[in-house]
Amino acid sequence: MPDAAPADALFTDLYELTMLQAYFDERMAGEAVFDLYVRSLPPQRNFLVACGLEDAVAYLEGLRFTPEVLEYLRGLGLFSAGFIDHLASLRFSGDVRAVPEGAVVFGGEPLLEVVAPIAEAQLVETYLLNQLTFQTTIASKGARAVIAARGRTLVDFGSRRAHGTDAALKAARALYLAGFDATSNVRAGERYGIPVAGTMAHSYIEAHESERAAFTAFLNSFPDTVLLVDTYDTERGVMRAIDAARAVPGARPRGVRLDSGDLLALAKRARALLDEAGLRDTGIFASGGIDERQIAGLLAAGAPIDAFGVGTAAVVSPDAPALDSAYKLVAYDGRPTLKLSPEKMTLPGRKQVFRRYDGGRMAGDTIALADESPGGEPLLIDVMSRGRRLAGDPSPLDAARGRVRAQLAALPEALRSLDPAPDPYAVRISPALARARDALAARLARGT
Amino acid sequence: MPDAAPADALFTDLYELTMLQAYFDERMAGEAVFDLYVRSLPPQRNFLVACGLEDAVAYLEGLRFTPEVLEYLRGLGLFSAGFIDHLASLRFSGDVRAVPEGAVVFGGEPLLEVVAPIAEAQLVETYLLNQLTFQTTIASKGARAVIAARGRTLVDFGSRRAHGTDAALKAARALYLAGFDATSNVRAGERYGIPVAGTMAHSYIEAHESERAAFTAFLNSFPDTVLLVDTYDTERGVMRAIDAARAVPGARPRGVRLDSGDLLALAKRARALLDEAGLRDTGIFASGGIDERQIAGLLAAGAPIDAFGVGTAAVVSPDAPALDSAYKLVAYDGRPTLKLSPEKMTLPGRKQVFRRYDGGRMAGDTIALADESPGGEPLLIDVMSRGRRLAGDPSPLDAARGRVRAQLAALPEALRSLDPAPDPYAVRISPALARARDALAARLARGT
Repeated sequence: MPDAAPADALFTDLYELTMLQAYFDERMAGEAVFDLYVRSLPPQRNFLVACGLEDAVAYLEGLRFTPEVLEYLRGLGLFSAGFIDHLASLRFSGDVRAVPEGAVVFGGEPLLEVVAPIAEAQLVETYLLNQLTFQTTIASKGARAVIAARGRTLVDFGSRRAHGTDAALKAARALYLAGFDATSNVRAGERYGIPVAGTMAHSYIEAHESERAAFTAFLNSFPDTVLLVDTYDTERGVMRAIDAARAVPGARPRGVRLDSGDLLALAKRARALLDEAGLRDTGIFASGGIDERQIAGLLAAGAPIDAFGVGTAAVVSPDAPALDSAYKLVAYDGRPTLKLSPEKMTLPGRKQVFRRYDGGRMAGDTIALADESPGGEPLLIDVMSRGRRLAGDPSPLDAARGRVRAQLAALPEALRSLDPAPDPYAVRISPALARARDALAARLARGT
Repeated sequence: MPDAAPADALFTDLYELTMLQAYFDERMAGEAVFDLYVRSLPPQRNFLVACGLEDAVAYLEGLRFTPEVLEYLRGLGLFSAGFIDHLASLRFSGDVRAVPEGAVVFGGEPLLEVVAPIAEAQLVETYLLNQLTFQTTIASKGARAVIAARGRTLVDFGSRRAHGTDAALKAARALYLAGFDATSNVRAGERYGIPVAGTMAHSYIEAHESERAAFTAFLNSFPDTVLLVDTYDTERGVMRAIDAARAVPGARPRGVRLDSGDLLALAKRARALLDEAGLRDTGIFASGGIDERQIAGLLAAGAPIDAFGVGTAAVVSPDAPALDSAYKLVAYDGRPTLKLSPEKMTLPGRKQVFRRYDGGRMAGDTIALADESPGGEPLLIDVMSRGRRLAGDPSPLDAARGRVRAQLAALPEALRSLDPAPDPYAVRISPALARARDALAARLARGT
């Protein structure tokens, strides 16, 4: 299945195209620099995990206006014939620097910088924001579950509640990137090479004359499966699972799944019953509206749970379902630019983010002008040059997954909490950048 | 652009396929009845607006396993060769009844009923839940904004914050269905025939030497445009817009857009300035993190705002970003089925929802067995027979939009509030259905 929007030039806000028409009329084709960033973290997040860059680069590489698209635009009656002809040959020819997928980032830090002729750089705003905002939202949420699970298996069960098909697939990828172990979505498994998981629903049990008959039949097809035991009565379900496992030659159920009720008590009871029956290798899988706080709570209480299926909480991120992301012009034709709107002031010019470490832990970031050297690891790296992707990791998803692991290990302990850290991570603006911003703001406030 | 998942059989949870393998092994091919419904309304919703049926039907009609998909499944090593051959010829051959798009619905009421051989009915769970849950979430959220806006123009600005591309497109459609007037997403406009809207971003202003120069240039390209006036200072921005409108021959700006700051005060000031300048037809457009509560508040305070751009609030629905939806087996092979899990008990058998009206207002729904006649308007109608779509409205989106208008007008006044209604809408279960459920529950609790 191709991507939902394979460089579809029509997946954009109309205002991008009306601005392009105006630039065309004005013969304005200077180089623009745009920053994509999250203005500030939601109160429920101590950090973000950057995600979505692979789709962004693929989109920029493939972007073009097909004849079908041009025909539709012509029919709108908004655009000149000359402009529509011009769109036919438009390609993205710019440079891109970005924070690699899987890196931890904070409010105000550019995730991505586009440098291109203004029409190209402007047009791509909608898709880049759409993908980077959502995927970063989900990778960030997923990382919380990974921290909470302390090594237990995590499976994405969210496709049914994700916001559409693209969200289901991208969430599966973002969660795997964040450290999940598998997804239930088969297409995501196929597209991204992610392990797929899943065995049975309640409907399977109910379609049979009895729970015991259902378990027996399923073990005949899948001897090492996970049996869902809460359709009628969880404790009796576990006993029937044990009976069925004994009755089917060669059956060795990998687990039983609890999907409702008091998961702590039921997991302990199920563990005891399985152990008594000699099924010590049969694990306990918990699901059913679980989020990272419940995972942490269950494990803190000693619940003998080996794996968690996480659905809505992971793919919708209900406690922070969107990020305050922006894609802002910071320079045009060599001149730094600035927006003064209340609460939304931007940082002018080309920038770099430098991260300092102390004893292996992240110790503070500095947003600086691109040509400064305040020390620390630079986060933005070159990913596209003249419209072409630069050679990168051969397995970007695996590389990003490894990066998340390393970055989560390097997070200051207070930031690993599921609750808001008492002090946010230190992100400062370099004195030179602050001076540049203030001088430009003063000039713009005087007269524009 | 084709749909993100054009009847893609791989867009499914793995457990659907493992269950299908087991049914295949067991030669179980009886008729199953599944209900799709929302268990209960989120606390922030007094009603839902059904949405997503068009995509559901298109998916069911087109569903098939392509050779590429079968090849991937073969490689997983989970399925038998005979089963994979069987999948190659699988089509959806069942019947579907559903609540039409745009109808108001409540917790527990089936939105859709699938009657088909169990493999077909089971396989489609993931996609149906994915689409109906999300689209209903957004149409329901959008209806709140429509109520709050009291006839003002509403434009969907949410594509950049929607959860991926499919969400952006489907949200544009769901919001239009709910009563919005236009979308910024050009592909949504093309695909669904929705009016598109949008003019300029802050970057356009900033790329020019001055705000005045930007306005003048844009009016030369689009004489009747909406000028964005808050880049530097909103009041000065309005004055510059007036100057530019006077300077450009033939310019008659349709509006000015306020995107930050105190929208009430700024709208009043902008209105006064425009009126003084004789630009009485130039409207005021407000945007910038607006939701239905702010719309209601601004209008109640007398803000002279003619149109609202709504983004994140509409397409992410942050106060209720998911619904507790379920797709549950209610009968197999003529036998009603039931799940007893705590808080998640289902209603067995084929059902109908009957709605009573009193003086043109909705006065209570009854969920009954399908063959009961308790009186009232039946909500579920036949939409597919033997795998084929039944003739329906020639313009389903327009019909659904009209239905929303009529249903919102028929809502009890307390339910139109943005706050939770003191008493929820009355949805009762018919005595015969309650008896059927209780008798089956008792039987299942005795022994399964």
